[in-house]
Amino acid sequence: MKLSAEQLTTFLISISFMLFFAKLFGELCGKLKQPSIIGEILAGIILGPTVFGMLAPELSAKIFPQTPQITVAMDGITSLAVIMLLLVSGLEVDLSVVVRQSKTALFTSFMGIVFPFLVGFSLAYTFPDYFGINEENRKLVFALFMGTAMSISALPVIARTLMDLNIFRTEIGLVIIASAMFDDLTGWIIFSVILGMLGQGGHGFSFLEKLLFVFLFVGFMLLIARKIINKIFPYIQKTFSYPGGVLNFIFILGFLCAAFTEYIGIHAIFGAFIVGVTVGDTAHLREKTREIVHQFVTNIFAPLFFVSIGLRVNFITNFDPMLVLIVIALAFIGKVVGCGLGAYWGGMDKSDALAIGFGMNSRGAMEIILGLLALQFGLIQERVFVALVIMALFTSVASAPFMNSILKRRKKPTLKDLIDKDTIIFSKSEDRISVIKELVHVIAEKYRLNEQDIFNEVWKREEKLPSGIENYLAIPHAKAKVSKPVVGISVCKEGVNFESGDNTPSKFIFLLLSPEGQNETQLQILAEIAERFANRSKVENLLDLDSSEKVASKLIEETNKNI
Amino acid sequence: MKLSAEQLTTFLISISFMLFFAKLFGELCGKLKQPSIIGEILAGIILGPTVFGMLAPELSAKIFPQTPQITVAMDGITSLAVIMLLLVSGLEVDLSVVVRQSKTALFTSFMGIVFPFLVGFSLAYTFPDYFGINEENRKLVFALFMGTAMSISALPVIARTLMDLNIFRTEIGLVIIASAMFDDLTGWIIFSVILGMLGQGGHGFSFLEKLLFVFLFVGFMLLIARKIINKIFPYIQKTFSYPGGVLNFIFILGFLCAAFTEYIGIHAIFGAFIVGVTVGDTAHLREKTREIVHQFVTNIFAPLFFVSIGLRVNFITNFDPMLVLIVIALAFIGKVVGCGLGAYWGGMDKSDALAIGFGMNSRGAMEIILGLLALQFGLIQERVFVALVIMALFTSVASAPFMNSILKRRKKPTLKDLIDKDTIIFSKSEDRISVIKELVHVIAEKYRLNEQDIFNEVWKREEKLPSGIENYLAIPHAKAKVSKPVVGISVCKEGVNFESGDNTPSKFIFLLLSPEGQNETQLQILAEIAERFANRSKVENLLDLDSSEKVASKLIEETNKNI
Repeated sequence: MKLSAEQLTTFLISISFMLFFAKLFGELCGKLKQPSIIGEILAGIILGPTVFGMLAPELSAKIFPQTPQITVAMDGITSLAVIMLLLVSGLEVDLSVVVRQSKTALFTSFMGIVFPFLVGFSLAYTFPDYFGINEENRKLVFALFMGTAMSISALPVIARTLMDLNIFRTEIGLVIIASAMFDDLTGWIIFSVILGMLGQGGHGFSFLEKLLFVFLFVGFMLLIARKIINKIFPYIQKTFSYPGGVLNFIFILGFLCAAFTEYIGIHAIFGAFIVGVTVGDTAHLREKTREIVHQFVTNIFAPLFFVSIGLRVNFITNFDPMLVLIVIALAFIGKVVGCGLGAYWGGMDKSDALAIGFGMNSRGAMEIILGLLALQFGLIQERVFVALVIMALFTSVASAPFMNSILKRRKKPTLKDLIDKDTIIFSKSEDRISVIKELVHVIAEKYRLNEQDIFNEVWKREEKLPSGIENYLAIPHAKAKVSKPVVGISVCKEGVNFESGDNTPSKFIFLLLSPEGQNETQLQILAEIAERFANRSKVENLLDLDSSEKVASKLIEETNKNI
Repeated sequence: MKLSAEQLTTFLISISFMLFFAKLFGELCGKLKQPSIIGEILAGIILGPTVFGMLAPELSAKIFPQTPQITVAMDGITSLAVIMLLLVSGLEVDLSVVVRQSKTALFTSFMGIVFPFLVGFSLAYTFPDYFGINEENRKLVFALFMGTAMSISALPVIARTLMDLNIFRTEIGLVIIASAMFDDLTGWIIFSVILGMLGQGGHGFSFLEKLLFVFLFVGFMLLIARKIINKIFPYIQKTFSYPGGVLNFIFILGFLCAAFTEYIGIHAIFGAFIVGVTVGDTAHLREKTREIVHQFVTNIFAPLFFVSIGLRVNFITNFDPMLVLIVIALAFIGKVVGCGLGAYWGGMDKSDALAIGFGMNSRGAMEIILGLLALQFGLIQERVFVALVIMALFTSVASAPFMNSILKRRKKPTLKDLIDKDTIIFSKSEDRISVIKELVHVIAEKYRLNEQDIFNEVWKREEKLPSGIENYLAIPHAKAKVSKPVVGISVCKEGVNFESGDNTPSKFIFLLLSPEGQNETQLQILAEIAERFANRSKVENLLDLDSSEKVASKLIEETNKNI
């Protein structure tokens, strides 16, 4: 059985239309600083039964006919598309970032899974009827699904938002990315278990067998296969044509593992995602390979898939405003409160924690794929699916403006807020370079920054113009990839020559790092330090103290006074 | 209708197997310096009914089942694959090379179409029964097809072979590439006309209507759309995301035109090929975009398509040794004799003309695609298809060794062979740099070389060590991208200072360019020039002559004498 000439013509026209409108709306969203997936979904809704099918049912049936051959061929393409999309999403997960998580990221990701899960689960379990679940034995599975649907996040959308806000490489950015990676990984594992519970497909494996398979598979891939791949990757790149050999390796492994997870009754995309994570982790995967896979999949296949969503469902007849509101409210409460609390408990101040909560709130592509599978497995109704899609779009759009307004309203930092006993050290160094190196080391450790880069920046500034000022003070400083100013203090009782104006050795050295692009903040803090210690005796008092704690509390006491 | 979980599993396994074996055999061929398509076809023959299906019919039926859903989904993918492949092949055609064809290339490409066409046509028209054509009304169409099948060439395979032999940028290489591009373009146009004659599909358009459509379409794309695209390309790259916007544009246009040509009853791939040619011609298409499309299509989609060939047909039961021999003989006679004669008439010497003939002989992917369409349209039998595939593989493999042995056996050039009245000039220049520039200009024009590059090389050498020698001679020289040594002569009656050993001004200046990597040839010709003009009076006699023709004939007379 093959496509007739007429069917091939229609098939090609359908694909052209899908790609064209996806790109058009996707690019429009890009211009409006929105994730392009929103435009791609909208394109599908407009091309599908919701708008075009309503306005011109005959033409619509001509361009997107429901003949078995064409729908099967299209299903083949979109299945491959979503498998490739998950493979690429997996490639973007950087396991080393997840493993090196700071305390803040650990708390954030944990609460970012647990709290939304509980919110989604309990509501769905309490009112299953409202969501159209009437069978008692479906209640638990459905509640588990809603829990997962609330706790999944969308790494690509989140990463894009952080880049747009120019905070990708800041502390907040890293916490969000690490947490989102962890939540994606956990979310998909939980979801695969739920699919296993649904008991469809899977060649009759019992739920426990499936559960075992999932954990064996994930464990094998992330612990053993990852190391093997890391070992053989240079060999593949050397022996086979480049990048052809590597491209093939990635896709063959992706399709095979996809087949495996589909076989055991989970879903193909789970296998592809895990392969992506495994392969993406090797340091030998070159940028060029990533780029080719990424560009081709996100520009040709992903749009086809996202448009096909809108073609499947009528978004008007299945639009239930109350349900949509409830799902959006659940999503916001779950993620913003969960992640916000996690970040706060993990050591962030309130406004940063809130910003992290909103940053983690984007659901994007992942939610939609999750929802589509649930719909196909008959777990949810179309109106729930529509609500999930709208929630996914809304949370993705809302993320950037919310974060932006919170980050803008953060009060201007003053010296008081920056003093931290962890970054106060006592030093016996006798030269500028060692003192600065020690301080940079402490700060880089504490805030997980690149020690070498920061030292280079500070030293470049210091060499140009030594930073010693009167009254035993020196304030070496530089811009760095931090989300707010950071201060480290070194107490050098012997004094170090920072070439200060009054020719006294510097005994109290402030290292000040401020965010890039925030000249004003830097100048203001530099001025505050100079002003608060205009009196030499104040500094001498501080020099008598013998522990970081005492110095910190004395400093805070001093800086509480009005100037 | 959609793929069930079980079908999706099988579909993914089939694709993984196809990709894996295609890559394995393709890379093996690469190691043996053979085009990878040969390995990919072999992989299909081994995976298909010929070997695997014979040895393990049950397992084979499990991995490549014939259920309608899976075959339709696979047909959808391979249809897209071959459309994308032709799009990429079109991108590789450089219209400017075709338009700027030298006399040699014009003769070669013309004879490369006409002669093989006549050979194929006349044999098929005389003995249609032998090829299994019994209906009288099919005879003409079939003979036309066999003519086209003999005259098509395979640009990607040819380009690869030329690169392997390191003669891509030489005169021979450029003649071959330009001719192959022209033959591909013409071949596909003729074939599309033949498909039109078959009268299948095409919504009832008459043959003349189809013919009109083909010419209107090709004319519109190459004359009008090409210019429009060239204009709007920078706009697309600027306005839309890069490279996403351009990628989409290329594929949307490709699929739409494919749908159009399929609709009028030609075939989808013809539209895609013409779009490739049109888009590939714009100077604004960046290398990165080409690279992404090229790598993804040739590494993922092309192998799927080529493997699927072997899956369709049994290459043993349909193997007819006599027919295979005849088809191969026809192919060799048609292309090698046709192109060889063309190149010879176009001004090449015999051995170069023969090398060009073998260079043009590769049929590769194009022949196979042509054959497959003819098979699907019911125009040829499976045994003819098998013979065409084997011929395509054999001509592709044979091309490199034949060319190599001819190029190696070329007799060593002596000065006599290199003298050409077209490159003898009379100069009134008074300094080295102008004399050299004039000579480089004449040679670059005549042999279509990069003037600036050659001047740089010659001048670099000249600055290091001035090339004047005794007896009014100077021999500036350099390596260049030429396939054999090239000499230009400037007669400067006033004499120019080339710092010769005997302090005489140089009046007879030979510019010698020799092929890269051929040190021996260069030294030998340098020595011959010095030796032949060891007598000053000989040079003085030459200086009395007043036209290029006279200088050339006198020189040839001189160089005919034994030293």
